[in-house]
Amino acid sequence: MTTTSRRAAARIRVEMVRNARRTPRKDAVAVEEPMEVRLEAPEPGGGAREHPVSVTMRTPGDDFELAAGFLFTEGVVTDPHAIGDLRYCQKADPQEYNVVTAGLNRPGAFDAASLTRNFYVTSSCGVCGKASLESVEVMGCQAVPDGTLEVGDADVRALPERLRSTQRVFDRTGGIHAAGLFGVGGQVTLVREDVGRHNAVDKVVGALVLRRELPGSRYGLVVSGRSSFEILQKAAMAGFPMVVAVGAPSSLAVSFARRFNMTLVGFAKPDGYNVYSGPERIRGLREAGADEPTPAL
Amino acid sequence: MTTTSRRAAARIRVEMVRNARRTPRKDAVAVEEPMEVRLEAPEPGGGAREHPVSVTMRTPGDDFELAAGFLFTEGVVTDPHAIGDLRYCQKADPQEYNVVTAGLNRPGAFDAASLTRNFYVTSSCGVCGKASLESVEVMGCQAVPDGTLEVGDADVRALPERLRSTQRVFDRTGGIHAAGLFGVGGQVTLVREDVGRHNAVDKVVGALVLRRELPGSRYGLVVSGRSSFEILQKAAMAGFPMVVAVGAPSSLAVSFARRFNMTLVGFAKPDGYNVYSGPERIRGLREAGADEPTPAL
Repeated sequence: MTTTSRRAAARIRVEMVRNARRTPRKDAVAVEEPMEVRLEAPEPGGGAREHPVSVTMRTPGDDFELAAGFLFTEGVVTDPHAIGDLRYCQKADPQEYNVVTAGLNRPGAFDAASLTRNFYVTSSCGVCGKASLESVEVMGCQAVPDGTLEVGDADVRALPERLRSTQRVFDRTGGIHAAGLFGVGGQVTLVREDVGRHNAVDKVVGALVLRRELPGSRYGLVVSGRSSFEILQKAAMAGFPMVVAVGAPSSLAVSFARRFNMTLVGFAKPDGYNVYSGPERIRGLREAGADEPTPAL
Repeated sequence: MTTTSRRAAARIRVEMVRNARRTPRKDAVAVEEPMEVRLEAPEPGGGAREHPVSVTMRTPGDDFELAAGFLFTEGVVTDPHAIGDLRYCQKADPQEYNVVTAGLNRPGAFDAASLTRNFYVTSSCGVCGKASLESVEVMGCQAVPDGTLEVGDADVRALPERLRSTQRVFDRTGGIHAAGLFGVGGQVTLVREDVGRHNAVDKVVGALVLRRELPGSRYGLVVSGRSSFEILQKAAMAGFPMVVAVGAPSSLAVSFARRFNMTLVGFAKPDGYNVYSGPERIRGLREAGADEPTPAL
């Protein structure tokens, strides 16, 4: 288990204990390593300057997507199309695969103030300055238009298993999150894994940044865990009208979804789910009973 | 659902969908709100100065413990006994319960450089400058001495249920993490809940800070989720010799535990668990078979 591995899983020695009996064996764990993101931005007067942006504990793999997604969903780069080349640190040292520099292809797409906002750090989930719903609007998020992306009820129920069946690293480690994209037919077309829930979402968004496919209004986001403020914020930045989570939402995730006209589903399982916002994007739902009025959410 | 609530759970309207049939109901979700931490540190020349430190998305409740724990486990305050009074912002505005100021009772216990380290932020789990194991040693972490805190095998297996049975908010929301303390007899003596895994640990450590009970070498830490680098780092800062997790560890959590001579257990269940480091602190284990050699971890 070297700390410079680019593998997503590592095999280690472990003692498996069952009924007080210990057995040595080899087991796989999800790899967690720091990755630094730097931004090389053209200066107004010519030339370019490199700015340190962040260090994230992440699972190696899809590092360029992670960098591009993070820079855009956190509001550091205001125009995803301005993200040009991405490269690992050129120095031939063991950390070379843990430092990614993103180059901007034009001036003016870098919000230097976002780095000051980022001075405030959080222990588990996010960055200050966007701590309120209002601040997300400042970052350029807008309410999703009605009617974008409709998905059938059966597809919503099938999404967790469709996501799960493509998770390569989870199968071996039991300890990694996933995020995926789905379209109008409910197919899961792109999946990324990471020990960090938010990183998995950044990798998915970053894949669309690199393909020049943002805004992603044709896609919904499915996540293996819970939904929090920050998951919703990243989805909104990417333009996804719908978030389907296997786990529970937080109160702020629900507030966020309602404010930005997004569909939010939680506790998705084969036999059903809860809809916290925007049920009109799910096709094929019946009312519980003709004589029971259904209040608006 | 107001954003200034100090409740840990909020009731909201939701549409429950089962077999394509939608039923409106009320449901509880875990509350997530931003909390800003400020530090009021005496200046060498007299007087005091307030430093903004962080904003964390957290579940309201035990806010002073969260602030104290965060300040200590992140290395901002180097001596936990220097944390004196804690108070909410005095201004009578709706955010008054979302800003906590910690006052230091002596100069010299504040590492101003830690705020510069914190300039680097992460999307999911931590702060740079401590991204390597070495940097944690710089923060003052030392390897745990052999023999501190031994716990029986049956107690390790019982810990998840003992933690779970005390989780008040999870029962209602299904979406919140917990961290707890246990002693040599395996009793879970203190439990804190939060939407952020790391916040739950900070609240537990902060409770010991406020009780002047650090270092916590008499206690082990049990967590409801996975174990990552940062969970281990916070446990090491608090002096806990043992971390028992219901979920999987990351590679760096395993490396951390081995380097600091901590016991790390994962996948804890009633019938067994995996030991990734330090099995000698678990009493009552038998070898798998007399003719099967047991390699050292």
